[in-house]
Amino acid sequence: MKIQTLLFEGFEALDAFGPIEIFSKIEDVSIGYFSLDGGLVKSAQMMEVATEPLSAALSDQVWLIPGGTGTRTLVEDRKFLLALKEIAEDSSYCLSVCTGAALLAKCGVLDGHSATSNKRVFDWVTSMSDKVHWIREARWVVSGKYYLSSGVSAGMDMALGFVSDLYGKKVAESIANRIEYVWNQDPGTSPMSPAGR
Amino acid sequence: MKIQTLLFEGFEALDAFGPIEIFSKIEDVSIGYFSLDGGLVKSAQMMEVATEPLSAALSDQVWLIPGGTGTRTLVEDRKFLLALKEIAEDSSYCLSVCTGAALLAKCGVLDGHSATSNKRVFDWVTSMSDKVHWIREARWVVSGKYYLSSGVSAGMDMALGFVSDLYGKKVAESIANRIEYVWNQDPGTSPMSPAGR
Repeated sequence: MKIQTLLFEGFEALDAFGPIEIFSKIEDVSIGYFSLDGGLVKSAQMMEVATEPLSAALSDQVWLIPGGTGTRTLVEDRKFLLALKEIAEDSSYCLSVCTGAALLAKCGVLDGHSATSNKRVFDWVTSMSDKVHWIREARWVVSGKYYLSSGVSAGMDMALGFVSDLYGKKVAESIANRIEYVWNQDPGTSPMSPAGR
Repeated sequence: MKIQTLLFEGFEALDAFGPIEIFSKIEDVSIGYFSLDGGLVKSAQMMEVATEPLSAALSDQVWLIPGGTGTRTLVEDRKFLLALKEIAEDSSYCLSVCTGAALLAKCGVLDGHSATSNKRVFDWVTSMSDKVHWIREARWVVSGKYYLSSGVSAGMDMALGFVSDLYGKKVAESIANRIEYVWNQDPGTSPMSPAGR
């Protein structure tokens, strides 16, 4: 299984590298970093990461879509949204963290699905599509092949949930233990949602 | 204040980018990525990050030293250890995550200090120096200008502790809330230590 991460200018580092840290502990998983045209891509934390172009990505694999301030302009970028729609539809699973859900909603692949996103910008994200069943209270949501998490750190909880669903809960707990992470295991309640605080 | 991150081949991504995510939310903080000679540096998660050479770093700033599998060879690398000793001694604060403490201990700057590190490789890390007071139970330890955390995710708790010490607890809690992170606030007990489980 290959986890392919889609990076773009202004992505939020932990949205991508939190889940990646977890996936990197599974033996048969390889990890790749991509952007629309390849090359160095700068995160909101001013870190530049090397990426391959989307043309080098594999079919029928897992995609991870982070959020970040860069999503604010990308939701208006037709070329980006068409490419995103293509990889999302082609994926075996497609995971988004934080405002990554805004991109997926905008390109239409979440129509008819349930989803969640960052609690602080929830109104902006949900304005991207009224064909998505948005769940404000959730830490993360699983809807078909789509896994969608709340803001930043919630991506790590979702990643462990994804590992649990595919490899079993013991594997997920073992990884959490190995990276000394206290896993918030309940997808239905976010500690940061109005209900969870 | 500038947070300068020292990267090396085989660094653990979350050791660096967990704390960086937190520091990036402070308005007057800038962030830089460095390695001994500069250029692209590959993490244990196969991500390549652009770095400046150490010669471009500023004096009297904060250094963040991640751990990772790369530390296993670096503890025998005299040139690296001399450079690390120099930047650690020159720093205003010096923070290590996970096996980053092995590097600091080996170059001698932790002599007479208290410290902690990753619980899974604690015996290897502590074998680097018998002049350090190693505290197995701790999530993180503050000793003078040195902040030293347990494995991987513990770096985020320590980073919030560092922010709390410098900017106040409300600022730290506000950042944790903003990135939807459940902060383990007690430095003395690690959920992953024998006492904490």
